[in-house]
Order: sequence, then C-alpha cells, then structure tokens
Amino acid sequence: MRRKNFGDMSCPIARSLERVGEWWSMLILRDALAGMTRFEQFRESLGIAPGMLTRRLDALVAAGLLERRRYSAHPPRDEYQLTERGHDFRSVLVAMLAWGNRHFAPEGASVVIVDVATGAPADPILVDRLSGRPLTAPDYRLAPGPAANHGMHRRLSSGRRSRLLDAGSARPARKRLSRAAGGDRR
Amino acid sequence: MRRKNFGDMSCPIARSLERVGEWWSMLILRDALAGMTRFEQFRESLGIAPGMLTRRLDALVAAGLLERRRYSAHPPRDEYQLTERGHDFRSVLVAMLAWGNRHFAPEGASVVIVDVATGAPADPILVDRLSGRPLTAPDYRLAPGPAANHGMHRRLSSGRRSRLLDAGSARPARKRLSRAAGGDRR
Repeated sequence: MRRKNFGDMSCPIARSLERVGEWWSMLILRDALAGMTRFEQFRESLGIAPGMLTRRLDALVAAGLLERRRYSAHPPRDEYQLTERGHDFRSVLVAMLAWGNRHFAPEGASVVIVDVATGAPADPILVDRLSGRPLTAPDYRLAPGPAANHGMHRRLSSGRRSRLLDAGSARPARKRLSRAAGGDRR
Repeated sequence: MRRKNFGDMSCPIARSLERVGEWWSMLILRDALAGMTRFEQFRESLGIAPGMLTRRLDALVAAGLLERRRYSAHPPRDEYQLTERGHDFRSVLVAMLAWGNRHFAPEGASVVIVDVATGAPADPILVDRLSGRPLTAPDYRLAPGPAANHGMHRRLSSGRRSRLLDAGSARPARKRLSRAAGGDRR
C-alpha cells in the first residue's frame, strides 16, 4: 500500500503511526505484551499469513520495538522479545482497551483491568505524573516543543482550539443524514 | 487490503483497531480533535488522495466516530464533526503523542502537553480514576469480563503472565543479531 512516510512529519502521533500504524503490528505488540515470543505463537494467535507475519516482525525489529534472539542453532530458530521501547507501547494499548470496552462491547466487556485489592473494574484516565491531575484543559494545553518547526507553530497558534485535551464529551451522535440525499459529500 | 475482520474478535483492542487501525483514520481523528471539520482541511493537512480521504471519512462515519452534517445546500457541502465516541478516542492519541515524544523525537519534541500553571511539560501516565493509582501490576491485573468467551478465559489463565500492566521497562535493546547470519528467522 502506497502511503506518505509519516516519519518525516514532526507530529509525534504521525511518527508513532509510522512504526505501528497497522492492524497487525499493534496486535503483535499486544501478544508480545501477553508473553508471546515465538513465530508460531503469533501466527496461531492472530491467524495471520506467514509471509505477512514475517514482514510485520521484521518491521517491528527495524523500528526497535522487538529484538530478535536466536534460541536454537539446529534448527535455526529465533524468538522476539520486547525492547524497552516496545514495552512502553503498553500505555497506548491500555488506552485502546479502555476505549474498546466503552464503545464496542455491547454485550459487555470480555477483558477488564481490575483493582486486585477491591476487585472493582478500573476506569483508566491519563494524568500528569508530576501533579497527579487529569491531562485536560484548561489545566493543560498543547504547546510547541523545542524542536517545533514553522508548520507546527502555525498549527498550534491558528486560533482553532484543539480539543485533544477536552475532558467533556463532544456532541452525542445524532441521526445521520442519509447518503441517499446525494450531492457532493465533500 | 485483505484482512481478518477484527470486529468479530472479542478482544477490545482488536475491536478498536477494526474501527481505527489504519494510518489515515487515526490522523483524521487527530485533525478532527484539532478542530478541523471540512474535507479540504483534512486533505490539505494530510496530503491524502481525495478518493482515499472519502473512503476513510465514510468508514469513520459508519463506525460512529464522525457525524456528517450538511452545511451548504447549493453547492452541497458536508462537514464532519466528532461524535462522543470519536472525541473519546483522544486518550489513545494522547498516549501515542507521549510515546512518540519519548522514542521518536531525537532532536527534541515538536509538540508537548504543558501544565498551564507551571509551564512544565506533563508526563502522561494512566491511572485508575477511582483510586488515583497507576494502572500497573501488582495493584491491577487483567481479568475476564462478563462477556468473556472460552478463548479469552483460556488466554487470561494460561499461566503466561501478561506484561500489559508492568510498570518497569523491559530489557533495553541490545545489539541485534545480523540478518546476514541467515537461517530460518521463525
């Protein structure tokens, strides 16, 4: 699939997607965090074609998220272990787990994070480690970092208010306009 | 691109990826959270081909993350507004922003989240809203939810310890085995 090389973009979200912005990559990282290390374990868990799995593992090794380690010389066999960078991706997957449970589990959650002491399901939110406060406006805002280029400065000062740090919900989904209404949907 | 339908899987991460597991979709949501609503805004921001953008917007509307609203009858023009579900995706993007800054910004961050009161860059971590404690083992663990099927029960009780909630880092990346070493990389 042809696509822009997001690694060239200065946005950290785009750069992250350059390394993991693909279905399989994130599910391989999920399984690696679940303790899997071997080709056959990933293949069986994901039902993925071997050629595709090889390419995805190679890409994750090249991006420094997994490390390849030879565990058998005869026959030659490698296993894949999470690097610190790969392990650190857990925060994204935990946020995705929580979002999936909130929005795509009409029959109830299949897997939850529970408080071991009380047994209560956890409600994950992002806070600032330093202050302990939720990372939401108006306490927090997006700002250009030391390496911000002109485009990033313009983007952040455009007057268009970012809602990335809005705690409240946006408008609830209303009845959608019918596509049959026709017209240019641009 | 042919792929498994992750929506059929019970894992909430897989279900989330079914809706957003694609480069463009997540960047469109990023831009929507930055305040963009119109086709031309997304196209200009992303440098994406119009046909691809139309397909991605349609998919996000179908998944209930964006809502299409007619803002001009002559000529017919629609805009795209975040639903509550789409807005709630912000937690995933904030986690991805933090991860990208930690690992893929060798020249320094381009965009940071700052504490408005102190000006200090925030250090985002996930905590339980109820207890305020970090969502890490051994205080928290993954458990089957009310809708867990047999496979999920087996996965969570396999004895293979999940590291999804491990706070500490995994082993640091070591020198990688050369691919030239040959052999079956499975």
